[in-house]
Amino acid sequence: MNILYILDLIGTAAFAASGAWVGVRKQMDLFGVLVLGMVTAVGGGTLRDLLLGDIPPFSLKDETYIWIAVGISLFVFINRTRFKAFETPLLYFDAIGLGTFVVIGTTKALDFQLGWLGAVLMGVMTGTAGGVFRDVLANDVPLILRREIYASACVAGGGLLVLLEVVDTDRTLAALLAAGTVIAIRLLAIHYDWALPKS
Amino acid sequence: MNILYILDLIGTAAFAASGAWVGVRKQMDLFGVLVLGMVTAVGGGTLRDLLLGDIPPFSLKDETYIWIAVGISLFVFINRTRFKAFETPLLYFDAIGLGTFVVIGTTKALDFQLGWLGAVLMGVMTGTAGGVFRDVLANDVPLILRREIYASACVAGGGLLVLLEVVDTDRTLAALLAAGTVIAIRLLAIHYDWALPKS
Amino acid sequence: MNILYILDLIGTAAFAASGAWVGVRKQMDLFGVLVLGMVTAVGGGTLRDLLLGDIPPFSLKDETYIWIAVGISLFVFINRTRFKAFETPLLYFDAIGLGTFVVIGTTKALDFQLGWLGAVLMGVMTGTAGGVFRDVLANDVPLILRREIYASACVAGGGLLVLLEVVDTDRTLAALLAAGTVIAIRLLAIHYDWALPKS
Repeated sequence: MNILYILDLIGTAAFAASGAWVGVRKQMDLFGVLVLGMVTAVGGGTLRDLLLGDIPPFSLKDETYIWIAVGISLFVFINRTRFKAFETPLLYFDAIGLGTFVVIGTTKALDFQLGWLGAVLMGVMTGTAGGVFRDVLANDVPLILRREIYASACVAGGGLLVLLEVVDTDRTLAALLAAGTVIAIRLLAIHYDWALPKS
Repeated sequence: MNILYILDLIGTAAFAASGAWVGVRKQMDLFGVLVLGMVTAVGGGTLRDLLLGDIPPFSLKDETYIWIAVGISLFVFINRTRFKAFETPLLYFDAIGLGTFVVIGTTKALDFQLGWLGAVLMGVMTGTAGGVFRDVLANDVPLILRREIYASACVAGGGLLVLLEVVDTDRTLAALLAAGTVIAIRLLAIHYDWALPKS
Repeated sequence: MNILYILDLIGTAAFAASGAWVGVRKQMDLFGVLVLGMVTAVGGGTLRDLLLGDIPPFSLKDETYIWIAVGISLFVFINRTRFKAFETPLLYFDAIGLGTFVVIGTTKALDFQLGWLGAVLMGVMTGTAGGVFRDVLANDVPLILRREIYASACVAGGGLLVLLEVVDTDRTLAALLAAGTVIAIRLLAIHYDWALPKS
């Protein structure tokens, strides 16, 4: 589980950066940038833990997550005039985070005896709800409800993980395959500019 | 309790349709429409369960609710070019759902030993918070904070239910009277275009 | 604890008035004004209790808080044409509430064995999340993410309280010093129009 923890922290950092960067672009002050970074980084997993009843949530049990989110947000704020250069590499780290968060969320929901639809939902929520909170606080319609393949990658990864669990696949292997699926779909979607059908 | 469960599922379907329809009108993609449908349908009861400490919430314990929400949202998305014709009948089903949700929420809060103000609040929240989440995600000021008699119908129904409980009325009778009150006020308000005083 | 309870109720009233007043200015109807008043008054502490696992939250255990919020919101609504005169005195009561809420939140988090970063966060959240909910419902970017010294006063007060706890200061004294710090910084910030660096 050590590598999963490291990937989790990388994802936390990437999500915090994306949140803080929205705060900067919305001309928030330092506190606003910190809040957006933290909420984006730990919001999804925190909501999942509230719904599963694992309280206090992971983000209050292991303070590493919040320290990383605070540190990265501060870094983004300080380097805000040249952060644009980080936008593209950030997309790759964000994809890694997304895959990791979905796997962690889905697995945890299965451990808490949720049904398979609920488990997939918890995985998707772990990966996406932080970004939704970020956009609501920034007074935008959440990006994820409007654009390209982002949540769909989470649904595919979470669904695959549940399927592999049902057929009793080794958990480490299943986690790797599911996270890989999310990351691959996400990167392909960025590269080929894929999108879901729109209303 | 069988009829209450059936009414609950009807309400869930109606609320999901109203949420999905907002997603369509906001030009969200398929995922956005599904999220708005689900959140509108189960958001109020889920928040109630978090506050009462009944975790995991009903929506993760019995997956029927989410399957219905997903199915109906999909239906709305697929039929989006001709869904306008459903708007008026939807108002009636929405009123049935509202009455049912208020009764279920208030009753549950009483079972959890809340005081009567808290119980009415939980009933109103069960009926209305899903729509508030829907509007926040769609980046609108929640409809319910601005317009006609909607929440007021919930307050009346929840208040009546608490009153009937205090005077020890049979629970089935009380539920019927309270739900009927919500539905009647709501339909009269639509018909006569009633509204609360505005700021 | 008696004086802390009284200060808590004063803060609840001030926060409810600020929420209701936003509802009035956004032309909400009576129900909207009541919801904004309640959410602003008890939203922060309620979220804190959900995260700490103290459920049902304080606002549903002791109905005094919600009765005060409802009463004050009603008062603001009825007197909406002349409430502008109360805006300046309200700032002082709001500062008292802020200091009290931060102290209560931080102390409670320490009692629940949170780490010190978590405890400060819970204190800040108790003081500020209600206002964030208010602004999200009113479809604004939360004031607190953009403007002057408000959250920073909470961070300072919460941090001081944790520090005093670590060096084993008497709790009543620590609470007084921390609340005083929040209130003093807040009032000085209003007076001298201080602000954090902006993006």
